[in-house]
Amino acid sequence: MHTLEEIPDPSSTATNANVKIGYIGGGSEGWAHTLINDLLQCEDVSGSVALYDVNYEPAAKNAELGNRLVERDDAPGDWTFEAYQEIEPALKGADFVICSIQDPPEETFVHDIDVPQEYGIYQTVADTCGPGGAVRALRAIPQYREIAATVREQCPDAWVVNYTNPMTVCTRALYEEYPDINAIGLCHEVFGTQRFLAGIVEKYVDEAEDVDAEEIDVNVKGINHFTWIDEAYWYDRDIFPYLDEELEERKPLPSFEPGDLDDEGYWTNHHQIAFDLYDKFGLFGAAGDRHLAEFVPWYLDIDEPEEIQRWGIRLTPSSARRSDGEGPAKMSRYLNEDGTFEFQESGEEVVDIMRALLGIEPIKTHVNYPNEGQISDLPTGPVVETNAMITGAGVKPITAGDFPREVRSMVRQSVDNQETLVEAGYAGDLDLAFQAFLNEPLVTIQRDEARELFAELVEIERDYFRDYDLEGADVLTDD
Amino acid sequence: MHTLEEIPDPSSTATNANVKIGYIGGGSEGWAHTLINDLLQCEDVSGSVALYDVNYEPAAKNAELGNRLVERDDAPGDWTFEAYQEIEPALKGADFVICSIQDPPEETFVHDIDVPQEYGIYQTVADTCGPGGAVRALRAIPQYREIAATVREQCPDAWVVNYTNPMTVCTRALYEEYPDINAIGLCHEVFGTQRFLAGIVEKYVDEAEDVDAEEIDVNVKGINHFTWIDEAYWYDRDIFPYLDEELEERKPLPSFEPGDLDDEGYWTNHHQIAFDLYDKFGLFGAAGDRHLAEFVPWYLDIDEPEEIQRWGIRLTPSSARRSDGEGPAKMSRYLNEDGTFEFQESGEEVVDIMRALLGIEPIKTHVNYPNEGQISDLPTGPVVETNAMITGAGVKPITAGDFPREVRSMVRQSVDNQETLVEAGYAGDLDLAFQAFLNEPLVTIQRDEARELFAELVEIERDYFRDYDLEGADVLTDD
Amino acid sequence: MHTLEEIPDPSSTATNANVKIGYIGGGSEGWAHTLINDLLQCEDVSGSVALYDVNYEPAAKNAELGNRLVERDDAPGDWTFEAYQEIEPALKGADFVICSIQDPPEETFVHDIDVPQEYGIYQTVADTCGPGGAVRALRAIPQYREIAATVREQCPDAWVVNYTNPMTVCTRALYEEYPDINAIGLCHEVFGTQRFLAGIVEKYVDEAEDVDAEEIDVNVKGINHFTWIDEAYWYDRDIFPYLDEELEERKPLPSFEPGDLDDEGYWTNHHQIAFDLYDKFGLFGAAGDRHLAEFVPWYLDIDEPEEIQRWGIRLTPSSARRSDGEGPAKMSRYLNEDGTFEFQESGEEVVDIMRALLGIEPIKTHVNYPNEGQISDLPTGPVVETNAMITGAGVKPITAGDFPREVRSMVRQSVDNQETLVEAGYAGDLDLAFQAFLNEPLVTIQRDEARELFAELVEIERDYFRDYDLEGADVLTDD
Amino acid sequence: MHTLEEIPDPSSTATNANVKIGYIGGGSEGWAHTLINDLLQCEDVSGSVALYDVNYEPAAKNAELGNRLVERDDAPGDWTFEAYQEIEPALKGADFVICSIQDPPEETFVHDIDVPQEYGIYQTVADTCGPGGAVRALRAIPQYREIAATVREQCPDAWVVNYTNPMTVCTRALYEEYPDINAIGLCHEVFGTQRFLAGIVEKYVDEAEDVDAEEIDVNVKGINHFTWIDEAYWYDRDIFPYLDEELEERKPLPSFEPGDLDDEGYWTNHHQIAFDLYDKFGLFGAAGDRHLAEFVPWYLDIDEPEEIQRWGIRLTPSSARRSDGEGPAKMSRYLNEDGTFEFQESGEEVVDIMRALLGIEPIKTHVNYPNEGQISDLPTGPVVETNAMITGAGVKPITAGDFPREVRSMVRQSVDNQETLVEAGYAGDLDLAFQAFLNEPLVTIQRDEARELFAELVEIERDYFRDYDLEGADVLTDD
Repeated sequence: MHTLEEIPDPSSTATNANVKIGYIGGGSEGWAHTLINDLLQCEDVSGSVALYDVNYEPAAKNAELGNRLVERDDAPGDWTFEAYQEIEPALKGADFVICSIQDPPEETFVHDIDVPQEYGIYQTVADTCGPGGAVRALRAIPQYREIAATVREQCPDAWVVNYTNPMTVCTRALYEEYPDINAIGLCHEVFGTQRFLAGIVEKYVDEAEDVDAEEIDVNVKGINHFTWIDEAYWYDRDIFPYLDEELEERKPLPSFEPGDLDDEGYWTNHHQIAFDLYDKFGLFGAAGDRHLAEFVPWYLDIDEPEEIQRWGIRLTPSSARRSDGEGPAKMSRYLNEDGTFEFQESGEEVVDIMRALLGIEPIKTHVNYPNEGQISDLPTGPVVETNAMITGAGVKPITAGDFPREVRSMVRQSVDNQETLVEAGYAGDLDLAFQAFLNEPLVTIQRDEARELFAELVEIERDYFRDYDLEGADVLTDD
Repeated sequence: MHTLEEIPDPSSTATNANVKIGYIGGGSEGWAHTLINDLLQCEDVSGSVALYDVNYEPAAKNAELGNRLVERDDAPGDWTFEAYQEIEPALKGADFVICSIQDPPEETFVHDIDVPQEYGIYQTVADTCGPGGAVRALRAIPQYREIAATVREQCPDAWVVNYTNPMTVCTRALYEEYPDINAIGLCHEVFGTQRFLAGIVEKYVDEAEDVDAEEIDVNVKGINHFTWIDEAYWYDRDIFPYLDEELEERKPLPSFEPGDLDDEGYWTNHHQIAFDLYDKFGLFGAAGDRHLAEFVPWYLDIDEPEEIQRWGIRLTPSSARRSDGEGPAKMSRYLNEDGTFEFQESGEEVVDIMRALLGIEPIKTHVNYPNEGQISDLPTGPVVETNAMITGAGVKPITAGDFPREVRSMVRQSVDNQETLVEAGYAGDLDLAFQAFLNEPLVTIQRDEARELFAELVEIERDYFRDYDLEGADVLTDD
Repeated sequence: MHTLEEIPDPSSTATNANVKIGYIGGGSEGWAHTLINDLLQCEDVSGSVALYDVNYEPAAKNAELGNRLVERDDAPGDWTFEAYQEIEPALKGADFVICSIQDPPEETFVHDIDVPQEYGIYQTVADTCGPGGAVRALRAIPQYREIAATVREQCPDAWVVNYTNPMTVCTRALYEEYPDINAIGLCHEVFGTQRFLAGIVEKYVDEAEDVDAEEIDVNVKGINHFTWIDEAYWYDRDIFPYLDEELEERKPLPSFEPGDLDDEGYWTNHHQIAFDLYDKFGLFGAAGDRHLAEFVPWYLDIDEPEEIQRWGIRLTPSSARRSDGEGPAKMSRYLNEDGTFEFQESGEEVVDIMRALLGIEPIKTHVNYPNEGQISDLPTGPVVETNAMITGAGVKPITAGDFPREVRSMVRQSVDNQETLVEAGYAGDLDLAFQAFLNEPLVTIQRDEARELFAELVEIERDYFRDYDLEGADVLTDD
Repeated sequence: MHTLEEIPDPSSTATNANVKIGYIGGGSEGWAHTLINDLLQCEDVSGSVALYDVNYEPAAKNAELGNRLVERDDAPGDWTFEAYQEIEPALKGADFVICSIQDPPEETFVHDIDVPQEYGIYQTVADTCGPGGAVRALRAIPQYREIAATVREQCPDAWVVNYTNPMTVCTRALYEEYPDINAIGLCHEVFGTQRFLAGIVEKYVDEAEDVDAEEIDVNVKGINHFTWIDEAYWYDRDIFPYLDEELEERKPLPSFEPGDLDDEGYWTNHHQIAFDLYDKFGLFGAAGDRHLAEFVPWYLDIDEPEEIQRWGIRLTPSSARRSDGEGPAKMSRYLNEDGTFEFQESGEEVVDIMRALLGIEPIKTHVNYPNEGQISDLPTGPVVETNAMITGAGVKPITAGDFPREVRSMVRQSVDNQETLVEAGYAGDLDLAFQAFLNEPLVTIQRDEARELFAELVEIERDYFRDYDLEGADVLTDD
């Protein structure tokens, strides 16, 4: 087509009523509320949302919230919400399926952070890679296998949007079970980099004011949370020369000292690592520094948690991952005090993407999607993160070119682990999984200690490893 | 970015004045007039056009025409036109370079068609592949090598747009000389397929009326003139089921008899071959049948020219390639009678593409561009044809997926020939070139006859092979 | 190991008694007699041979012959022979399985030759590629699928040696059914080239006399019957300079006229095509010219059979493929007149290969085997022909390097067809098979004629296509 | 050929007299003496040895030694030895070139070991990878570039045999300068594994006695010192089941305690790591444990040197790398006391390999050679280690198959570093080199400490980095 046009012909929008969305993890307080917020502000799509959750109650509350909010005058959208006890009816005939699930942090995530720390391995996040990320992946794979099987049975043509971490492994696991699935994974991190670059433009370009993150066109490549950009433009203006200036201004890196960040939040980010990678490898890290740090052994080789503050970031302690228990009170307010829930611009794209897939308005954004050549020097099959064009015809990744050798070497190591974890998760084979665990960049402890760490993590989260062959696993019984 | 936005900020359009376009082949009557037409109707870009041509006179006439038309009230564009005797100053500092050149048909193209025919090889077009296309490629490569070298020297960051055939080889030759060149090749053929599909939608979809070709989203893959589509959507509606219906209605194929097309023009196209390929391989041929027929040996294995009419096409005879000599008279009218030149909607995209590259408005279209993974089962490097996203950041191909094995086998054969011809053209090695000539699908004559044909073609066009080692070529002297 | 030593230790040869060979096609007059001949002359291996054939009688005769010959004084080998009515017991527990089978020529091969000729397609052999070879492949694939399944069940670790054409497809089909099978294909053609090169050495090297074909070390690469050599040494002496001399002496090629070979046998070979390929592509064709000619369209584009004599070869007419009926009489003589069967040096390697696999003496030879990188620019998986090292550890292909682009292009086309035929054979899908048929280099006739030819061949050999979906095949019903 | 025959014809051995060997590093006490030893015991090759060394004196002494020994009755070989002050005449017209060079350990190797230790990085050997190996590679690359250039000029067809570490990088550097060079790298480590496996056979197979390492056929794959075997046969008997038994007997691993090896030599090896890798990855490590340990971060993550004794190996301290100064005395004895130099079976293969290349007797052995497909899942180009067939036709790698994913991931990381180091060495670019340095598995210290370590190593060995752009290197000046 000559230009990317919006749908011109009302007759073809008939399909945009009666859209069904199945939501797995529908009891969540975060993503589910955002979806309600976004859908109710969308005027040209309507239909129903089926909220399924292993905990029915919160899903039912969310359904009640949605159905109440839709009545409000400031909600132009026309949607009905219903909670489900079973996944099958929730997904039956769905046009879209959204996944955002999480095991109880107290029984899982907390250990993913704390146990490795006892072995001297510090993780800033622990949800994607490193020992914690590897174990989280193993827990998630059987769950995503089941989701994919249910999609194949209940709504084989639906588009599945995943929000759960580890993003790469979860999305990849869907395709392993059901290769014809239509699935993408969405993540915010690159938006953060775009916002940062918008600030760089404002700082260095005289005529630039109020630059919006959406105006920054970045060439995204890599895997989720270890994403890189090698091109950034504000319209037709190359931003990289300004990055060079900024780098010189910031040098030497790192520029903090332990303790400097004691008063900052755990999520603080000063882009020190993104710039350090840019300095050494020529590509800018396009995820928060807390994520980037976990994909190489050099930043987190520390003896005390505060040391990582030198790089402008903090470790998220396990305490911050425990539920704060404030959800029910907030929900109660929402349901009882009309107006407490304020509609806002969420910054999320899922509704924009649905509109694109429904043929209403094309969108170009970055997605997690199996490599089919968009990154030419990574193997085809694994899930990677690049830009994609989304239209009524579906999702088409945009080629991102290849990597400098040493960056590819690092990215590929994680891609290999992704594949091995998925293979191990499907086979229920913890010995195979341990091969990937050992190959994690943060696992630099002695080999036999690594085995003990792995075994201890599996043991403490044993209930979540029911799909694995625990008896036959040498890695659990060596001694 | 969330959506593909037009440039919002007038301040950044400063770069869109004073745009310089260098035009190689600036004396042409076709493309040059179209460019003048399109530029003078474009409001948000202005600048100058440098028309270079080996024949200065027609270029000077075109410059005069452009400068006169810009004065007209119905020409909002603000451009100046100048003709050049030398290529260097014409390209110096250019932002864009357009190439549309052709050797005198009487001395080249006419032989490319007629000589093979004496050996029993019929070509419908003879400008892309087959014996004629191979020889045309060899003539063009040294010319394109020189263009690329001049771009590197005079305007290294310019975007080069090629219109000359053989499209694939010419564009590839630019990258061989100057790997960092910014170059694409543009061709109409896929638009024709989109128009055809728009008609299919109108025929089969009740509510569809006045469907525009731009509303048809096709997944383009292949090489120029041997292009395929494996997906076609009208917004979010899959068109392939309608193609299936249409195919059944049209069967059995071919449905014409020799002589049926005697009254039709040489460019007639009934999509019989596109449908036949779809029937046999599952992908629809996305170029005119006259082009598709030349990439396989089965359609043009005929004894008499009329036989090809069975497939709904005709051979273009060499007589139709000779100049009609009407250009000067028309130009004279244009220059002397104001209003004779009527501005029109050209259907060409080059100005849209310039606007996209200037950061004004993104565009998604199909282009000829080196494979960097957009077609994952072809080698990287050769020029292929797929969709691409064009923005201020440049051209990014959109992944098109891979091919069914047997289609890939055919496409790859031509890709291999493309590479061998370019290599031979750079080395001036006709023996190497003959390897590709022999591997052309239409060259099914005996081996020693093929050698004679090749030698005869080179001999008769000897003046255009000055860059080749004619003395050292065994293929010319075997006997 | 430092050198390739023979087995030194009698204690380890215990395994070399009681070797069991299962022979599929055990009623053959050719290969089975050769095997008996070779086994009975081998002193360090002994055991039993189970002869299975769809025709039991000839197998029983062969068993009787073997058991009688073993008694002779000039037969040092110690073997017993038994004929089987069923394949399962014949293969049960076998260490080696030999396959040499053929459908009745009168009902198959004869048509493979004659029917295409009616469509103007001449084939010199018709057993490997071209229309005849493609159809033969389709008939063989289900048979080889069954063999592989039986091997997996009865003797999963056996080494399977295939002699049947089309060599490449048959061997490939074994691996498709049972990927862990140990199978190779053996063919004589390269030996012929080695013999020819031995003669070249004798002709051009003063001190060379009585050069044995085994002294010629060739780097073999390609696929069976379209095999190439790009290196040939007599010990450490490069033979290619002599090939260059010989080529100059022989030029111009071809050097015969139609009719020149009327008095020569159908199998005559003057290496004109091997030299012509060498002249044009730099690699020497390493199979008989009759085979080489069928892989490209240029040699066999003739109007009358005699024309191909220009290249020093003849077409094998279908009459030469009918049984001569002399087998029973010869067998009768063998059984009744002791001494009629004379042991000889067969020139075959199968017993040498068995000895290598049993750990007795390593051997380096050329084999047909799945590509696992020995030819680096062909895809891994398809069966290719290269040198291999065979020891007690198994078969290890020796890397052969890659191809010049245009040679690879031709070879790859046939490799693609190999894969498509096997896929079609496994799916029983004649429409898919027809994709490969169309892509055969010799199929240069019009598309609709090609369809008719394919349909006619399948129809006339219908009894041998029982495993295919004949009703669902569009290619058989188009009209 | 049917079997691998020795050269039968005396007439063709004419070329085996007057063989010229150029020896770079001809003043060495180790390799040069071994070569003299081996050549003088070889009866069927004769000629001259040109000994070149940057230190002329020791080379002259070696020449004197050689010329004296050749006179002895127990030396059947016929060779002359000459020392050279310049490399060009030493290599002029050579048939073979041997390289075994080393920078003065006190100024280089000693620092490669000691400086990283100050940063907490312990290396068992430090000559191949890790921080020490990386720096050694950088020093060697310009030297090997010069060697390759000299070979191209003085003896372009010679076979070059490299013994210097880092083996992989040195051999790769030769091909980078002169792609048509004939070069291989030889290393002992795999022989050690074969000897170990011979012992396993003797232990587990009743009838096996005095099993020679040469009788063990291993499938070698990987890169030098990080080599793996996935098959091992004693004739046709699979050894892996015995390895499994042995592994079970040895478990749990590691089975030593710090201090256990205080009385053993620095080169002790208990195969604990080889077995541990086998246990975790299914492939047996085929190099000494001291080498294997350096390619992953888990074994050498220790706080004190003794800790590594748990894995049955020791660190080689830098003191063991200083010259012992005993060379001159020994040489003096050799020259003055006839008989002091005792000929022995060296266990080296270089003379066997020369004989193979001269066409006398083929040999199959493992070599370091550019990947051309012998390892199908590593990129082509980098130097890898596999078996190869060596004949008068040259060196042909034997395919070794591919790797399990996680093993490939580790090997590929080192392959990537190999390529980056060579590229950096050719460009003189220490910033690029630092990318590889950071990607070394042992470099797990903080990023800014890694930079300091790299800078300190370069600084202390500054005289050996003259070919690098020291001024322009950011990595040396960051602060």
